[in-house]
Amino acid sequence: MTTPARLIIGVIGGDQAPDDALAVAYELGRAIGERGHITLTGGRGGVMREACRGAKDAGGLTLAIVPGEDLSDVNEYVDIPVITGLGFARNTLIARTANALIAVDGHYGTLSEIAFGLIAKTPVIGLDTWQLRDANEIDAPIVRAGSAVEAVATAIRIARVHPQAR
Amino acid sequence: MTTPARLIIGVIGGDQAPDDALAVAYELGRAIGERGHITLTGGRGGVMREACRGAKDAGGLTLAIVPGEDLSDVNEYVDIPVITGLGFARNTLIARTANALIAVDGHYGTLSEIAFGLIAKTPVIGLDTWQLRDANEIDAPIVRAGSAVEAVATAIRIARVHPQAR
Amino acid sequence: MTTPARLIIGVIGGDQAPDDALAVAYELGRAIGERGHITLTGGRGGVMREACRGAKDAGGLTLAIVPGEDLSDVNEYVDIPVITGLGFARNTLIARTANALIAVDGHYGTLSEIAFGLIAKTPVIGLDTWQLRDANEIDAPIVRAGSAVEAVATAIRIARVHPQAR
Amino acid sequence: MTTPARLIIGVIGGDQAPDDALAVAYELGRAIGERGHITLTGGRGGVMREACRGAKDAGGLTLAIVPGEDLSDVNEYVDIPVITGLGFARNTLIARTANALIAVDGHYGTLSEIAFGLIAKTPVIGLDTWQLRDANEIDAPIVRAGSAVEAVATAIRIARVHPQAR
Repeated sequence: MTTPARLIIGVIGGDQAPDDALAVAYELGRAIGERGHITLTGGRGGVMREACRGAKDAGGLTLAIVPGEDLSDVNEYVDIPVITGLGFARNTLIARTANALIAVDGHYGTLSEIAFGLIAKTPVIGLDTWQLRDANEIDAPIVRAGSAVEAVATAIRIARVHPQAR
Repeated sequence: MTTPARLIIGVIGGDQAPDDALAVAYELGRAIGERGHITLTGGRGGVMREACRGAKDAGGLTLAIVPGEDLSDVNEYVDIPVITGLGFARNTLIARTANALIAVDGHYGTLSEIAFGLIAKTPVIGLDTWQLRDANEIDAPIVRAGSAVEAVATAIRIARVHPQAR
Repeated sequence: MTTPARLIIGVIGGDQAPDDALAVAYELGRAIGERGHITLTGGRGGVMREACRGAKDAGGLTLAIVPGEDLSDVNEYVDIPVITGLGFARNTLIARTANALIAVDGHYGTLSEIAFGLIAKTPVIGLDTWQLRDANEIDAPIVRAGSAVEAVATAIRIARVHPQAR
Repeated sequence: MTTPARLIIGVIGGDQAPDDALAVAYELGRAIGERGHITLTGGRGGVMREACRGAKDAGGLTLAIVPGEDLSDVNEYVDIPVITGLGFARNTLIARTANALIAVDGHYGTLSEIAFGLIAKTPVIGLDTWQLRDANEIDAPIVRAGSAVEAVATAIRIARVHPQAR
């Protein structure tokens, strides 16, 4: 199986987030949906819910990889919930499944998803999110974007030219 | 989130399987797709591939929860691959995510999916598959079906009347 | 790393169990501890707790692979708790980590551990537990034992002659 | 179960590391072992191997939570290998199981372990490792240490006064 025409773009960010981050998340989902791609999130509230809502308003498909053992915490804009029962370990699955990740703001959960994206060589685009510098003063390769539309365009472009078969 | 109109029906069975099991798997995917539901598998060959092929021939959507770290073992009929990197532990996610499971033939992997379905209270329908009897001589509650069409009808009916919010 | 002198023997069975199964579990832990091996369980009550208690009474070491996110459900006879936060998916880790598994009675969780043991080629010894027959009427290779002492002796012997490097 | 007298101290860092990081890792394992605590690692080479070697030289016990499906990549200083088959997702288990984590240098895998430590409220001590700053310019609460001995003393002290029941 090679990279399909319909990409899976992950939007990662907190269950709690400031209003501007929520507005950005909505625009991300909307832009992904308008371009015919799948919006992937962790399925809960905050950034995740707004990204799903934007995607649905654009007629897009929403996929969620959920931490709990049932649908109780899943937001109402999720079309396809994958129920893991793995708790926060489900973050590793989001990072692997996405063809690209877009991080918005975010707390430690988002940090873990960025880290797993870097491990899995999934491109990571950042919108006002974590800055990560290793012991050699080298910054982690997060591609910075200035707007939701730019972030989605960058995510799609990088996912397409990505050297691996994913 | 409550049980959606579009159900996720899991088809579980081996990567290797006899011809009659493969034919049944194709009919299962076809019947699930014709009724407008999502066919969920482990994304690999054998029963999984045939169920996906049947679903696509009926215009259905196929979801896969994949054991590997990339798409290399994923069959060409999978629309939405969830890449777990968890190996066989991904079987637990298939059992939780499905609104009902249909087991066809199958080896130890299928056995583990049936077991996790029973743990998660996901209804399990069996087509010529494992028989499981505990120390008190009580058979595990696998609902037996005689044909693919009957299995899909049963799976949908039980998933709908299922008492839990899943 | 090759198979060490000190084996890890898993005892699997329910959180709830009849009195005779609990007594057998205690004897299993005791026999494993007396022979200088590590007793591995899921760390909770019932069969798991009794196996740990027996092991400690014999001066043995107890390892547990725990489903929750903290120590709240871990029994007081566990020396080394591995906290997974994975829920029932932790059963796959018990089956892989053990050099041999001994199943006592048990419900669906135990069934899943037997299934994962068979997948991982970990020898499975059964004491009044599940009977598993596939579609070809072939019984799963559970080695039956008539007493706790026999089960432990068999587990150690098979783990030692096991062809793989585990 | 409450926090035991014998703590589990995780040492996290890369499979590949510069010589000074390897020397620090050895000293960490040695200091943990001398104080009678368990050294937990991911069981592979580099920082993980040196921490285990130091612990064994001090007569300590070494626990490893291993990514693969068998013992093939496990270093020779591991006493108790927990075989997960989960790949990098096993990092979440290291972060939860440790009473405190000490990070040395490290690449993206270590970054993910720090992130999961922060999620799980496991204290994280850093020795010349990642600097993490969120969108509000707030640094993640990594407690910096200047030497291996200081790091171990700090880890033990914080783990002991830790407010939660872990």
